Amino acid sequence: MDAPVAKLEYDPHASPMLRFHETVADFLDGKDSPRAYLERCLETIAAREPTIAAWVHLAPEVARAAADAADERYKQGRPLSLIDGCPMAVKDIIETADMPTQMNSAIYEGWQSVRDAAAVYALRESGAVIVGKTVTTEFATGASGPTMNPFDAERTPGGSSSGTAAAVGSGMVPAGLGTQTAGSVVRPAAYCGAFGFKPTHAALNMGGIHPISNTHDALGTIAGSLDDCWHIAYQIARRVGGTSPHPGMVGPETLGESIKPLRLVRLYTDGWAEVEGPTREAFEGLIGDLQAKGVEIVDREDGPDIAELERLLEGVDPIARTITQYERRWPFNDYYERQRDKLSPVLRASMEKTMKITQAQYDEAVARRARIRHQVGALGVGTDGFITLTAAGPAPLGLESTGNRSFQIAWTLTGTPSITLPLLSADGLPLGVQVMGFADEDERLARNAKWIAEAVLGE
Amino acid sequence: MDAPVAKLEYDPHASPMLRFHETVADFLDGKDSPRAYLERCLETIAAREPTIAAWVHLAPEVARAAADAADERYKQGRPLSLIDGCPMAVKDIIETADMPTQMNSAIYEGWQSVRDAAAVYALRESGAVIVGKTVTTEFATGASGPTMNPFDAERTPGGSSSGTAAAVGSGMVPAGLGTQTAGSVVRPAAYCGAFGFKPTHAALNMGGIHPISNTHDALGTIAGSLDDCWHIAYQIARRVGGTSPHPGMVGPETLGESIKPLRLVRLYTDGWAEVEGPTREAFEGLIGDLQAKGVEIVDREDGPDIAELERLLEGVDPIARTITQYERRWPFNDYYERQRDKLSPVLRASMEKTMKITQAQYDEAVARRARIRHQVGALGVGTDGFITLTAAGPAPLGLESTGNRSFQIAWTLTGTPSITLPLLSADGLPLGVQVMGFADEDERLARNAKWIAEAVLGE
Repeated sequence: MDAPVAKLEYDPHASPMLRFHETVADFLDGKDSPRAYLERCLETIAAREPTIAAWVHLAPEVARAAADAADERYKQGRPLSLIDGCPMAVKDIIETADMPTQMNSAIYEGWQSVRDAAAVYALRESGAVIVGKTVTTEFATGASGPTMNPFDAERTPGGSSSGTAAAVGSGMVPAGLGTQTAGSVVRPAAYCGAFGFKPTHAALNMGGIHPISNTHDALGTIAGSLDDCWHIAYQIARRVGGTSPHPGMVGPETLGESIKPLRLVRLYTDGWAEVEGPTREAFEGLIGDLQAKGVEIVDREDGPDIAELERLLEGVDPIARTITQYERRWPFNDYYERQRDKLSPVLRASMEKTMKITQAQYDEAVARRARIRHQVGALGVGTDGFITLTAAGPAPLGLESTGNRSFQIAWTLTGTPSITLPLLSADGLPLGVQVMGFADEDERLARNAKWIAEAVLGE
Repeated sequence: MDAPVAKLEYDPHASPMLRFHETVADFLDGKDSPRAYLERCLETIAAREPTIAAWVHLAPEVARAAADAADERYKQGRPLSLIDGCPMAVKDIIETADMPTQMNSAIYEGWQSVRDAAAVYALRESGAVIVGKTVTTEFATGASGPTMNPFDAERTPGGSSSGTAAAVGSGMVPAGLGTQTAGSVVRPAAYCGAFGFKPTHAALNMGGIHPISNTHDALGTIAGSLDDCWHIAYQIARRVGGTSPHPGMVGPETLGESIKPLRLVRLYTDGWAEVEGPTREAFEGLIGDLQAKGVEIVDREDGPDIAELERLLEGVDPIARTITQYERRWPFNDYYERQRDKLSPVLRASMEKTMKITQAQYDEAVARRARIRHQVGALGVGTDGFITLTAAGPAPLGLESTGNRSFQIAWTLTGTPSITLPLLSADGLPLGVQVMGFADEDERLARNAKWIAEAVLGE
């Protein structure tokens, strides 16, 4: 085993991440195999896990059996899907029939579901190789886990999908599942130098995933490439659809060619006050690059609709908090009343707030959300989407907090798709660029985002 | 223990059912107590359970402790709610933290959840006394359970909420929880001579209830009186709301005075072809009574809107089946692939159909459902609701089938509230009258239904 690495310089052009989709050709012509690929992943895990602590539960033998089955299918030239043989990490609030699901909570210590979550069912049906369960914050809403940032062990990997993001960002596995109720897919992906894709709300089936808030919870993918993010989301949507009544994410099996965005809205929302020099410079540089390549960037100076949206977004955090905290009252009220001593102090304290929110406050927050959603939708005419940072800067120091959500929360509240691209660095750490689209236009967003990534990385 | 009773004549004016709300005054002035009430329930259970087989799991000691706590509150003149001390049955697809939840499936044999379902949490917070878990068909969709009809042991109690309906209809407990994805609250309630209330879709929180179909699954109440049906539903809505984004059933804590319906739509849908003489005569008699009391009854002859609705409803069963079978594919695909030998032959066979339904077929069914919902809504102007039978007749012979759903399915598909009233009999068996209202107008429907019950029973 290599000595633990505490700090690595992040270079967007030389990421340690794995790009699964690029190896499929080698599987088909016998130059590589899913089993050999998995063994390399397990070696990286052995080398880096002692420093990073991304995993709660590893199941190498389950994974080897699945990889061997994939080997056979490739030998016969009949893989089940574009992700057949893909080693994957599954956030530990997502049920797995053959591994415990423990929610980073003493209440669920050793808990074993009798079924796979809908998404996990779909992944296995696609031939994906589930390697294990990854660290989450407590129920994806409470105390942080032990995971460290793969680029600096003194910094948070972000949360709540901490383990999946760290495992992908460090090259342990090419892809994994995360969930987002505030910023929990794109923020940790950005902090760990990974691609993250949170599709339109409910576009990926949430069955068998511990709930927080029905109207904000979203399943997302974190991977070493945007193509893999898409391929995985597609397989889930195709095989188990969305959370009904959403029929499932719309779009083709492969992402296809990138599409240049013609006009993007640049937003200056609350979080910008916190942004420091190197981050601001890196982002300005990117905007300049895009403009030089012919992408029109518009902002609040260019239209009253944009200024009005920014005005509405000033209050987004308390609106989102009221909604998610009210909607989570069950099952958290049950845990709080029955097993309070098994909740972390931070979750206990926030439950005390939850229990005080009234129906009237919730109704008001829902009404204000409707206004914001309407304003976002109105900008769908004439623009391709939005661009901003994924977070106010690179991963902050310390493991207790998983970072703030000011740059992510709006795009969870609006239910619209959001993608983080690991295109920048600041202070030697990964810095994410966030592009956000319109409801059920996931494909358009992903193809625009792919164009931006290619434009910046020169692929 | 009394000798098992195999057959009882049903008389709507002398039902064996318990009316909990009428005893609250006695609890408050010390003439009766929740513990004494519970003990009487346990005696009835001991006497009748050997014939009826309504329960999967009885928890008399858990119930006694809860009843004793209620005793104390009444002594202090401070009950927690209008259902404080009410003994209740909980259908065994609904999670209970202190009793197993077994879904009538070998897959869940002995399974214990770590939490109460949202509705059960709300009931306990209201002071209700959970007596045990009641028989369901397999996952509320597959093979029937052992429960017999309390009025004739050779007949079905209806399903899937078989045990709750039989326990209430036989006077074992005054109330219980059921769920309905096709007709599973109102049909068994009707067959067992009970009141049944299926509120507007999603108006009662479905958290912790095994899913079939997100857009059709509904939690409902079965009780010895309509007031108790309402009181229980109200407490659930108040304490845990609806399934988000539905904020929860709208209406007051008590049902209040009954309201005479001015105009009801009488429907002649598919199921009428099966209706036999005594049933038809009983229903015609009821319609005549209502007309004599000044309720205007309109039908397809009176308006093209009604005729159009009946035309649309001709195809309702296959539309509903396509939707619910497609939406249930997870988690049933997982059970089917992983533990097929633990599914009943009937569920295995129906899963084979489920796996063949395409997204296009689902989309078409959803589009047709939208047409039906629109047409129902259009009749909300100028009429108070709809009236028909709850089922084509009294409970059929045999326990294998829980009866057909032709009279109930439309009002699940439309997501609108439905109530069954045990006002009639045919061949000495209970016969339910169904009244149906408009989305989120649960209170209006319940108060109209209360008027009808009073008009017929002379209260």
